[in-house]
Amino acid sequence: MEHYYAVILAGGGGTRLWPMSRASVPKQLLSLVEEASMFKVSVERLAPLFTPERIYVVTGEGFADALRDDTPDIPPENFLIEPHARNTAAAAALAATVIQKRDSEATIVLLTADHHIADKEGFRRVLQAAYTLAQDDYIVTLGISPNMPSTGFGYIRRGDEIREIDDFICYHSRGFTEKPNLETATEFVLSGEYSWNSGMFIWRADRALTEFQRYQPEIYEGMMALQPTVDTPAYDKKLAEVWETLPKLPIDTAVMEKAERIAVIPVDIGWSDIGSWDALFDVLDLDSNGNVVKGTASTRLMIDTRNTLVYSDRLSVTIGVEDLVIVDTPDVLMVCRKDRTQDVKKVVEMLREMQHDHYL
Amino acid sequence: MEHYYAVILAGGGGTRLWPMSRASVPKQLLSLVEEASMFKVSVERLAPLFTPERIYVVTGEGFADALRDDTPDIPPENFLIEPHARNTAAAAALAATVIQKRDSEATIVLLTADHHIADKEGFRRVLQAAYTLAQDDYIVTLGISPNMPSTGFGYIRRGDEIREIDDFICYHSRGFTEKPNLETATEFVLSGEYSWNSGMFIWRADRALTEFQRYQPEIYEGMMALQPTVDTPAYDKKLAEVWETLPKLPIDTAVMEKAERIAVIPVDIGWSDIGSWDALFDVLDLDSNGNVVKGTASTRLMIDTRNTLVYSDRLSVTIGVEDLVIVDTPDVLMVCRKDRTQDVKKVVEMLREMQHDHYL
Repeated sequence: MEHYYAVILAGGGGTRLWPMSRASVPKQLLSLVEEASMFKVSVERLAPLFTPERIYVVTGEGFADALRDDTPDIPPENFLIEPHARNTAAAAALAATVIQKRDSEATIVLLTADHHIADKEGFRRVLQAAYTLAQDDYIVTLGISPNMPSTGFGYIRRGDEIREIDDFICYHSRGFTEKPNLETATEFVLSGEYSWNSGMFIWRADRALTEFQRYQPEIYEGMMALQPTVDTPAYDKKLAEVWETLPKLPIDTAVMEKAERIAVIPVDIGWSDIGSWDALFDVLDLDSNGNVVKGTASTRLMIDTRNTLVYSDRLSVTIGVEDLVIVDTPDVLMVCRKDRTQDVKKVVEMLREMQHDHYL
Repeated sequence: MEHYYAVILAGGGGTRLWPMSRASVPKQLLSLVEEASMFKVSVERLAPLFTPERIYVVTGEGFADALRDDTPDIPPENFLIEPHARNTAAAAALAATVIQKRDSEATIVLLTADHHIADKEGFRRVLQAAYTLAQDDYIVTLGISPNMPSTGFGYIRRGDEIREIDDFICYHSRGFTEKPNLETATEFVLSGEYSWNSGMFIWRADRALTEFQRYQPEIYEGMMALQPTVDTPAYDKKLAEVWETLPKLPIDTAVMEKAERIAVIPVDIGWSDIGSWDALFDVLDLDSNGNVVKGTASTRLMIDTRNTLVYSDRLSVTIGVEDLVIVDTPDVLMVCRKDRTQDVKKVVEMLREMQHDHYL
């Protein structure tokens, strides 16, 4: 699979993991689950399927140095620097444009750096199957087998079977549904026909550019103007010029949900989106009371405490509490009920409105 | 009332206000309610009834400098330094011994530095009435009119009226009861005959020494050996020698509960014992959701938060929580359910057993 490339979209953001994630420290650089950062974990689990030369990172100037330092084996020219954040459609197009120029036979898997995957071996196996399927001119999505009627994910409905590749049954997609309400989500899960949209897509680079041409012509025009300059001194200037003209759209709605010949491979690889604090309860090792403590302090006291997550580098003491997320950073202390962690995003917005930029 | 002296027993302790109170910073030195420390507030509310020359402080060597710095108007010779903590009977005896040597007509009010008193004017007025009564050879106790059947205080039952002094009706005491169970406490409160024992006692110094002679002869003997050395170079050595021989007893059980001719003056002066974190809810100004935040940070965000107390100098954010006490110090973070704040004492004991002395 020498023409297979992994592209990690690591543009930053992630306000729902505030106050750990900040404008200067995006969540990809946090070590919330494993000892390494989520970004580094995302890179390392690609080995040995992808050598460092076949791993690309799309990010902004602000984070590029930190990401490079975190993964020194990835060649510098594989870091594609966005002049500024312009959402994932532009980022995916840039990756396809550069990689296709360098390898006209390229197939790309689009990944992000904020997913936890428990079964790393299974993850690599399904990526191989997806590669095979992508050679038949499919856009392949990995569909996560849902374990609850989440209203936080989009869903993909599967249609007829295409074929089986290495134990993975591949299906035609019957379409995407944006985040549904609880009733609809419950129907979806009970029907057995739906998977969560993981946001992991596998497509050939030339197919990707064709899709942009069809559904996002502005992006395509820009990329065609840029492609001749790739690996020439004119690239940076051209990129800056082109970038301004691109619409800010997520790749899912800009292309994937419109495209034809979409395949879905349902997988059960212990995948979790580390999108908010409560998600960590699913991926961290909890004690018998459902608690978990992270941080550097050697001593913790949890007395009559249940279902509580503490991130703190100090001596933390909890007495008689339950269902809390407690996050302790040098300048901010947050205590949030576990089922309210989605509201952390609102706090960040409030602080922005209050012009407390040093907390963002 | 030139022979009236206030003695503040400020020997330290107060583990239930950990992690703010520490071995090196006793709770008297904390500014939990007002801007000044509880000790300084305790001294300042005595003015103008007591001039600084008639205010005494009994404390240990460890805290003496800090207390002196806090109240520079009190003459140095009014700080009575205990060689080590030996409970309140010994401390009260020491104060009576020194003061009586200096003024044979002295009357003493025994106070501590961990009480909040909302009605400071009423407090000084009842102290005047108590002085008058103490001249009739009574030991006067201030009885707090109970607003709930607390099991955390001792109770005093009142008997027949003695007389009325300046609007205060003074009664004979029919005896003390140690902290009762809830059923008994409820009976007491409903009967209308009981007050909480505030621990504030007013007695003539000579009467005090007579009571020690009768009920605590070891303490009396020691004090009689010490008294001739007061204000001589021999004092320190003699005190150190005598101190070792004294029993460690609280003044209430050692003397007051045994003594005769006890009077009680029921008062309603907005008195609160700042004995544990939950007590602060009664004395601090709560917002309309029952919350209060203390500390130096200029910004706080309390979202859907009720009945929660936060002490923090950082940006604190609470989301969807209620009935919590959150205390944030440089090396310790504590989150405790409001009705479990008595257990803070156990945490301190656990840390002591774990030999984490730097946290004590």
